[in-house]
This record gives sequence, C-alpha cells and structure tokens, in this order.
Amino acid sequence: MRLILVGFGTVGRGAAECLIAATPEFVRRGLEARVVAVVDPVVGSVARPAGLDLERLLRMADDGEPLDRHPDAESVDDPGALFDADVADVLVELTPTNLTTGEPGLGHVRAALAAGLHVATTNKGPIALAYPELEGMARAAGVALRFEGTVMSGTPVLSLCEQGLSGAGLRGVRGVLNGTCNFMLSRMEEGAGYDDALEEAQRHGYAEADPSGDVDGWDAAAKALILANCVLGADLRLDDVERRGIGDITAEAVRAALDAGETWRLVARVERGDNGWRAAVRPEMVPRSSPLGALTGPGNMLVFETDALGEVVISGPGAGRRATGHAVLADLLAIAGHGAG
Amino acid sequence: MRLILVGFGTVGRGAAECLIAATPEFVRRGLEARVVAVVDPVVGSVARPAGLDLERLLRMADDGEPLDRHPDAESVDDPGALFDADVADVLVELTPTNLTTGEPGLGHVRAALAAGLHVATTNKGPIALAYPELEGMARAAGVALRFEGTVMSGTPVLSLCEQGLSGAGLRGVRGVLNGTCNFMLSRMEEGAGYDDALEEAQRHGYAEADPSGDVDGWDAAAKALILANCVLGADLRLDDVERRGIGDITAEAVRAALDAGETWRLVARVERGDNGWRAAVRPEMVPRSSPLGALTGPGNMLVFETDALGEVVISGPGAGRRATGHAVLADLLAIAGHGAG
Repeated sequence: MRLILVGFGTVGRGAAECLIAATPEFVRRGLEARVVAVVDPVVGSVARPAGLDLERLLRMADDGEPLDRHPDAESVDDPGALFDADVADVLVELTPTNLTTGEPGLGHVRAALAAGLHVATTNKGPIALAYPELEGMARAAGVALRFEGTVMSGTPVLSLCEQGLSGAGLRGVRGVLNGTCNFMLSRMEEGAGYDDALEEAQRHGYAEADPSGDVDGWDAAAKALILANCVLGADLRLDDVERRGIGDITAEAVRAALDAGETWRLVARVERGDNGWRAAVRPEMVPRSSPLGALTGPGNMLVFETDALGEVVISGPGAGRRATGHAVLADLLAIAGHGAG
Repeated sequence: MRLILVGFGTVGRGAAECLIAATPEFVRRGLEARVVAVVDPVVGSVARPAGLDLERLLRMADDGEPLDRHPDAESVDDPGALFDADVADVLVELTPTNLTTGEPGLGHVRAALAAGLHVATTNKGPIALAYPELEGMARAAGVALRFEGTVMSGTPVLSLCEQGLSGAGLRGVRGVLNGTCNFMLSRMEEGAGYDDALEEAQRHGYAEADPSGDVDGWDAAAKALILANCVLGADLRLDDVERRGIGDITAEAVRAALDAGETWRLVARVERGDNGWRAAVRPEMVPRSSPLGALTGPGNMLVFETDALGEVVISGPGAGRRATGHAVLADLLAIAGHGAG
C-alpha cells in the first residue's frame, strides 16, 4: 500500500508512530505500507516514490526542520497532483476538523475518491457533512472510505458495529463522546468551579484555546451524527442534532446531583423517534453507579442497545496522539482486507 | 452457506432464533444461510438438503415433538456422514462444554475440519483443550475456525481483538468472565449469604445444578486460557492456569472490603510474567468505583491493556440464549468473508 499522509501535526505524527510500531503486524499479514508523500502546510510537503523514512520525518518535524530536506526526496509544489492512482493507493487525511465547510479535508477526500484512492481519515468534517456523497463516490470507485478515528479517537467502535455487532439488532446508542467536557464535569464533581475546570483542561491539552467546539457540544454532535448516519442508517444533517453544551451547569447543580447519588454527563444519544432516527447531545443527570456515571476524566464511552445482547458497553481514551494514530492503523488494515466481507 | 447445527438445546435454539432474525442482514450482504441438518441426542436429528424450516423446528423442540417429523426431511442414522463437503459448508457446534475430554464437541470439530468444513462453535472444550491442533487443521484445510461465543457469550471480544485492536500492542487483559460468580458476589455485597446467593443464581438459571464449574473458577479459567492462546499467542494448557474459586469468600470478607471502599470480584488475568504469558483466575478486591467494581449482576467485562490506546473496556451480558446465538451469527458472517483479510 502506497500512502499519502495529509496533515503532519499531532495526529499525523501519532499516525506515523503507530505505522512504525505496527510494522511487524503488517509483515505478519504479508502487507507493506509505504508512505510516498507527506503534505502539511506548516512543516512542509515532500514526496519519495520509494518510500519516506518516517522516523526521520518525525525527528525533522519535532525539530522544526522543513520536511523537504529529507534525503532523495522531492518537494511538492502541487499536492493535488499526488491524488493519482499511479502515485498512491490510499489517502490518509489527518487535517483538523472544520464543521462549517469541512475544508480542507472535504476537498482532499473528494479528490482522492474521484481518483480511485482508498481513504482513511480522522477528520470529522467531511464525514459529518457529506457522508452520503462520499460513500456514494467510494462505492462507485470500488474503494474503501474508513474513518474509525472520528468517533472515539481510536477506540474501535465503528469496526465493532460493522463486525461483532452486525446482525445484533442495534436499537440505539448513547454515551460520552467529548473527553474535555467529561474531564471538566469530573473536576466540578470534585469541587472545582467551571472556569478552573476549563483552565485545567486547557493546561492538560484536552481543550483548545477556543473551547467552544467542546463545551458547546459541537464535537459530540458531529460524532453523534456520524454514528447516526454511518452506523444506524439515518439521514440527518448537523442542524438536525439537538445540541446543548455544559456552559449552564453550575456548581450548585453539580452539588444537587451528587446529593441525589447522581452526576452530570454530556450525553450523546441516537435513538428512534416517531419520525425516524433522532440524535441529541445534552447534559443529563445519570446515577453515579451507572457505567456513564462511573466514567470520570477525559475518557469516552458508548452504550449500544441491541436486541440480541441487551446493552454492550465500550470505553477507551477520548483523545491522544497514539490513540488517534491507532485509528489510522485499524483503517489501513481494513482497507487491506477490502473487497472481502 | 449450508449449515449443520449440532446441539439443539438452549444455545442451539438461541442460534436458530438469531439466524431467523438476521435473515435481512444476510440478504443485505448477498448471503444465504441454509440449515441442512440438525443433530441432537435428545430432541432428535433430521436432515433436508433443500433446507429445514427453523421456525417449525423451534416449535417442535419446544413442544417435545421429535425433530424427524419435519416434513420432507430424512432422519439421520449416522451423524458422522453429514460431515462432508458435499453435504455442508459449515459445522455449527453447540454441544455443552466438557473441560476434561472436550467431547463430544472435540470429535465433531476434528471431523468437520478434516472434511474441509468451516467451524463455528460456542463450546469452550475443544478450543481450551486443543486449539493449536484445531487451528493447524483449519489452516491446512483453508477453512475458518471461529468461536466468538466461548469467551463472553456473544459480546464480540474476539472479533474486537482481531479487528479493531489489531496492531494496538496488546500487553495483557483482565476481567470478569463468569456471570454466576459475579451475580453471587453482587448479592453478597447486598447482604446475602453465600448459600442464599448460590440458590438465587440457580433459580435465575445462571448456575447449573452442579455449580462447581462456575464457583470453583473452571469456566473462567477456560475462558482465560482461550484469550491467552488464541488472542495473545501464548501456548498454555488448562493446568497452567492458576485457579481459585469464590468458595472461601465469607460474609465478613465482603463487609471488610465494603468498609474499605472495595469489593470482591472473581478476576481472570492474562499477563506477561518472567517466563512468558501467565493466566490466573482468583478472587481480588477491587475499588468499587473501578470498572470491574462497578460491574454488578451476571454481566461480564474485559479490560484490555494496550500500548496505543491505554485501557479499552468492553462489557456485555455473560450468558443468555439470544446472546450466545448472536455469537454464532457473528462467526458465520466472518466465515462468509473468510479468505479476505
């Protein structure tokens, strides 16, 4: 597999680390994953058909050295020319999420699918905003469109639904999908005020400088939308997701919940309503002893309600360079087996 | 896919119910699963190359009517003659677990693999006692050997390891794998004595009339062994699994744990020791607020420790007719995609 990595920030470098660590797993499966180009607006873009040295690129990027100083490599003037089945087999799209336009990821994914490349992405924008279109393009081209990292940052929930829960009669799903909010609510349970909890989340690197994507529920809404459309077969848009953030939750409300043996969680839900699937993100009080109530810190959790198995619960890290990098790996292994199931 | 179902007790009938419920999922994937024979020493054995009517067989079995009264069907004098690639594609082996000899399941699985049939089984005996031999036979014959139902009764942990966690760097796993013991320990936490908790577990149908397989840790040990050998690549035998049951846990010990904010769980562990992989099943005190401590009732849970994702936790039902039946379905869908990944 010849890969193009677009985006070489935290997620891109985590993916490169996972690719290096997973070399034995690829070899065991008789596979080779060769990165033929890396494209990034900040650290530079570089191509080498024989394969780039990822360890070297990681050192260069961490040291602030422009990537096109990689030996025997060509610098890239027109990244779009790389989206070509003669150049690469898979686009690995790792640019940051934009939930308004989907760009630049959406353009990259469209161009790659149009050129007959498989796509693996951790970018929520294109999947949340344009899944039906992109899925149709992938089907028409006979390639795979994979996006494990978009919902639980590498904890393999999408493959769980596709494989192990297939045929179990999925009736709905609920859970905690934003680690920043869960960390803040956990700290507020322990007595911190909202502003202190937010400041602490920023210090840990969970929350962005502009935290509105997290605390206003946009991030969780995009993930709920992806679950609804891609797993449960709904046809919703981001505007259809009922959305309320955690900004109104006061220290008093947190204390009152604790006195009742409950706790606040920002809960995402996808469930069947009278008029088809409904998705919502809003603060809910849940029993402290319930799985969602027991989830503290920046983790994520989903509870799948099924006919055959009752409730199946999965939890894992909500973020992290290596975690999201692992999602790319899982997608690549699935792409390697594409055309099979 | 032409299927032979061997074993038409609780698990076999649950599998039949799941097959009926999953017909749309099979159709969606362009598959057909046709049961050409059902073999059971109690309710009778019957074959029909054009396919048996599962709804009718379920009614007959529940009514105590011999299965060979199914219309247009042949009764089966020599079940062994069915294990033939001209007759069937998949053996679905659902007889009860025997951890001493593995029989009758082991003989069924060997005969099917030798004849070039795929195998899907919920029977822990053959997998716990003879996995290396059976896996070698399956590889030589180019067929699949699947056993999702052996570890968490349908909660898809084996496919999770095989797919989503592949390449994540699995360092070890621990968890609660016996629902009977977890139910009993949960009731003892609530004040019940050991004998009352056991009697209640039997009344709910969680525990057998002879509960030693559960309370002495044999069932959990077999499951830990399957995780060790089939997921983590160990080469252990059942005797290598350190095993202690819950029989020594007194009401006083339960109270003392609660006073310390902890609770007893029968914990199965597979982890690296100085001399390779080690597996153990023993009662452990765990914090009540930890995932294992918060798991009450007859459920099961596994905590996977990984390099890339840290801890990934999955929980689901520990037993149940429909749950174990779902495992068969997951195995069949994987078999349908066999040869691919």
